[in-house]
Amino acid sequence: MEWKAIAPEQAQEIAAIFKVLGEPARLQLLSYIASQPNQEACGCDLIEPLGLSQPTVSHHLKVLFQAGLLDKERRGNWIYYLIDKERIAMLQTVLAINL
Amino acid sequence: MEWKAIAPEQAQEIAAIFKVLGEPARLQLLSYIASQPNQEACGCDLIEPLGLSQPTVSHHLKVLFQAGLLDKERRGNWIYYLIDKERIAMLQTVLAINL
Repeated sequence: MEWKAIAPEQAQEIAAIFKVLGEPARLQLLSYIASQPNQEACGCDLIEPLGLSQPTVSHHLKVLFQAGLLDKERRGNWIYYLIDKERIAMLQTVLAINL
Repeated sequence: MEWKAIAPEQAQEIAAIFKVLGEPARLQLLSYIASQPNQEACGCDLIEPLGLSQPTVSHHLKVLFQAGLLDKERRGNWIYYLIDKERIAMLQTVLAINL
C-alpha cells in the first residue's frame, strides 16, 4: 500500500486519535477488549484485568468512546464496549507504508 | 492477524510513540517524508511543503527522531530524514485486528 501525505484538516483529526492512544492505560484497555471474543467486553469485566480503579477505567473508556475507538451497547444491566473497526482501519491506513 | 493484549511495560513504550504522533504537524511531516521517493527527504526540503517555520520543523523532526520514527543521515552539507520502517511496523502490529 502506498503511503500518501496527509492533508492538514485530516492531520488534525487523526492526531487527536493518536493522542488518545498515547496513554498506556488506554492502550491496554483497547488492546484487552480487542483480544476478547468478538472484540467486545462488559465494562464490569474491565476493572480486574488491568488492576486499575473503577473510576479510572470509566474515565478511559469514556475517552476511547469519544474518540470513536470504542462503541458501546447496553445489554440488560450492563454496558458492553466494542472495538470500532472502521476507526482502527483508518489508523491502519494512515500508517500503511511499503515495508 | 490476531490482536493480542499488550503487556504493561510494552504499553508504556508504545503509548509514548502514539503520543508523538498525536500532534498534527508531526503527523504531516512523517506522512510527507513517507510519501517521497525512498521514503526519505532532505531536512532543507521540509520547510516549504508544510508552511511551518524552520525552528518548528527542526523541533518536530527531533521529536520524531527521538521516538525512533525517523532515522537521519548526513549527506554532504545536508541532513536527510528517513522513515524507520521497523518502528512503523511495530505500530501496525499493535493496531492489527481482524476486520
